[in-house]
Amino acid sequence: MKYSLIKILPLFLGGILFSQTPQDSIQFKHIADEMLVNGTAYEGLRDLTQNIGHRLSGSEAYEKATDWAVQKLKEAGADKVWKEDVMVPVWVRGKESLQIKASDGEWKTLRMTSLGNSEGSNGKDVEAEIIFVKNKADFDKLPDNAIKGKIVFFNYAFNQKFISTGQAYGDAGIYRRSAASWAGKRGAKAVIIRSLSSALDDVPHTGMMTYDKDDTARIPAVAIGPKSSDELEKALQTLKITAKLNSNCGMKGEKLSHSVIGEITGNKDQSVIVAGGHLDSWDVGEGAQDDGAGIVQSIEILRTFKSLGLNNNHTLRVVCFANEENGVRGGRQYAKNVKEKNEKHIFAVESDGGGFTPRGFGLVMTPDKRKQVQSWRALFLPYGVHNFEYQYAGTDIEPLEVLGVPLAELSPDSQRYFDIHHSEEDTFDKVNRRELLLGAAVMGQLIYMVDKNW
Amino acid sequence: MKYSLIKILPLFLGGILFSQTPQDSIQFKHIADEMLVNGTAYEGLRDLTQNIGHRLSGSEAYEKATDWAVQKLKEAGADKVWKEDVMVPVWVRGKESLQIKASDGEWKTLRMTSLGNSEGSNGKDVEAEIIFVKNKADFDKLPDNAIKGKIVFFNYAFNQKFISTGQAYGDAGIYRRSAASWAGKRGAKAVIIRSLSSALDDVPHTGMMTYDKDDTARIPAVAIGPKSSDELEKALQTLKITAKLNSNCGMKGEKLSHSVIGEITGNKDQSVIVAGGHLDSWDVGEGAQDDGAGIVQSIEILRTFKSLGLNNNHTLRVVCFANEENGVRGGRQYAKNVKEKNEKHIFAVESDGGGFTPRGFGLVMTPDKRKQVQSWRALFLPYGVHNFEYQYAGTDIEPLEVLGVPLAELSPDSQRYFDIHHSEEDTFDKVNRRELLLGAAVMGQLIYMVDKNW
Repeated sequence: MKYSLIKILPLFLGGILFSQTPQDSIQFKHIADEMLVNGTAYEGLRDLTQNIGHRLSGSEAYEKATDWAVQKLKEAGADKVWKEDVMVPVWVRGKESLQIKASDGEWKTLRMTSLGNSEGSNGKDVEAEIIFVKNKADFDKLPDNAIKGKIVFFNYAFNQKFISTGQAYGDAGIYRRSAASWAGKRGAKAVIIRSLSSALDDVPHTGMMTYDKDDTARIPAVAIGPKSSDELEKALQTLKITAKLNSNCGMKGEKLSHSVIGEITGNKDQSVIVAGGHLDSWDVGEGAQDDGAGIVQSIEILRTFKSLGLNNNHTLRVVCFANEENGVRGGRQYAKNVKEKNEKHIFAVESDGGGFTPRGFGLVMTPDKRKQVQSWRALFLPYGVHNFEYQYAGTDIEPLEVLGVPLAELSPDSQRYFDIHHSEEDTFDKVNRRELLLGAAVMGQLIYMVDKNW
Repeated sequence: MKYSLIKILPLFLGGILFSQTPQDSIQFKHIADEMLVNGTAYEGLRDLTQNIGHRLSGSEAYEKATDWAVQKLKEAGADKVWKEDVMVPVWVRGKESLQIKASDGEWKTLRMTSLGNSEGSNGKDVEAEIIFVKNKADFDKLPDNAIKGKIVFFNYAFNQKFISTGQAYGDAGIYRRSAASWAGKRGAKAVIIRSLSSALDDVPHTGMMTYDKDDTARIPAVAIGPKSSDELEKALQTLKITAKLNSNCGMKGEKLSHSVIGEITGNKDQSVIVAGGHLDSWDVGEGAQDDGAGIVQSIEILRTFKSLGLNNNHTLRVVCFANEENGVRGGRQYAKNVKEKNEKHIFAVESDGGGFTPRGFGLVMTPDKRKQVQSWRALFLPYGVHNFEYQYAGTDIEPLEVLGVPLAELSPDSQRYFDIHHSEEDTFDKVNRRELLLGAAVMGQLIYMVDKNW
């Protein structure tokens, strides 16, 4: 491309910016300019991901990350910074391996990952024939004797037809969450699932699974990559294949941990606006897009409000939630404390869809408030934010819903997220500086509007 | 992120999809589904970029790429495929280096790239003191004797405040294009410019420069990375620094080359709809986003129309233009031939902004046609395409404007493009499969609407 982009119509942007609410559009631009030029979120994320790395709840790395967050919130200019006690589950992975062989073949090792919160094989080999099913309906049709003593392989593919990859993730999610419970109840020895991934590579993706309370057999659950899944399905059309699984993962009780909170006190009153993300990550990759991005964006908002002297009416509070990935204990504890202390919250917004180019906001609030936010749409259009139709909010702030707090979640472009999510590939190099900062900017702009109008 | 995205309102999309133009929205979905599930564009791009690589006009690699394009168009199902003769300039880089030293220091080598179409130093060292200017206004203020015999360093930075990076590129572009001519006229020995890059790394970016017709001294022009630029500016505040440039680049006449064209004949008439990109690239990186993406997207559209049996009324023609980067000869020759043959063209659309998530279309057409395209907006919204306000069209199809052909250009998300554009970093791994295919899908959808309605 050469120079054709020069001819962009400045009048269009100008019209939107200055015809409706001149003062607001000027502040919008101040916020975006400050972040895009002086923002520290990208360098902060480099530090978090490369010097601390992944940080599962209960790990030493997570505790380091809490100290890092305290430091960064102070540097950003928070008036108060503290750690909030949260009891978190401790899940440990340990060594793990999966091998397969056809009846007369050699053992072949597959790339694999145990699913989060899964029990392992206690370091013993679990060896059994693999039974393949495409989906739950096919699984339900199998007689018990076809399942008992076997390793069940669920190859339900991520549906590429959804334009929002979040919808495809939701669609396939039940296999990761529940397959072990389904198969365990019917006597299977273990389950293998196809990773919840939009990529066509061979990277395995972890993520939380759960056992039902009435499960007597808590069988191991592992994921393999899309390529291995396709190959295994194909091989199973004609061959009998045995798998040998060995893993050491499992729950190791609970531990005291912390969410990290920093705030700038409100000038008008002490009611609170929350911006947040989750500080924990899965124990693979670097937790860069999920959700280091949301953490550094939230801190960036505080830094920018302070740096521009925006003099927030309400208290602007950044919450770096503990334990989103395998328990949501940070979010639940936070809401519990808010209720107990009777702290008034007027708004909470989370970023937990990655630091990609922002496209909109999911909104969970009364129809009146929703309409009001949608009426600000023209202010956001010059920043590419156009979609205010989604109705969802971040997992960590959802527990605030029952307290009547209006909620929002940043809705970034979703195309790349599930290629890397919960995998070794979620690393700092997958994050683009401008995309990350633009996400922070529009969150900051939304907070600015709420702070002024609510 | 866990499961919060499940709660996306399907009613919203459904309402838009099925209330207004049910048949069109169904075809939109067919087109997108076919590409996202069965699309071959991504694998095609892997082949082009990794087996052929960069492919500057006049190079052997470019000629290989024309054979590749013929093959791919045939595989995609084109009724006719041919090469169109185009005379292209031949610019050759050769060896090049740039060193700097402070008065009492050692020579230090900087990463650099000669600008495209620049003359070099004929393999001789050009050694002179560096004079730094921030911009053209500062340059104009310097007396001639401050410039004569010197190497002028223009450190005009890419403006991070523009939300559309294309605007920032347009803003800074004049330095790449014209600095050599400005400085050459005043007796400078060479120019160094800051790369037109949105990144903050040290990657140098090439791209076309031009000499004025009346330039007697055609001095060498090179670019250095943003980091080296900042460091050099800082050093020049206190030190006298000498540069030593040695380069062998230069124009080597012209050569017969080709654009590659393939089409599916129209069922109703022989008037033509063009989808295109440019097949050439700069001689660094792999020409993946610029513009391998546009090429494989255009071929994907033809494949999809054929594969779905969409029975286009008008002839659907894919044009892989020659020589966009350093001459636009392919685009000009194409328009010339259209005029000479009196071929009726009803529409042309280009993709030359990278295979990133599509956000809209630039439109260059009569106000009536423009309004009509904008009236289709609701059909595009479920695919994230919302912006039909830009007024620009692809460089290769612009020569069709004077023939009255309505023009459009795919407007993808712009945040990452100028980090890698015209540099060693424009490689296949920077392209995301779903983003690339979604861009092809919405171009295909627009062509579907035009084919049916015009």
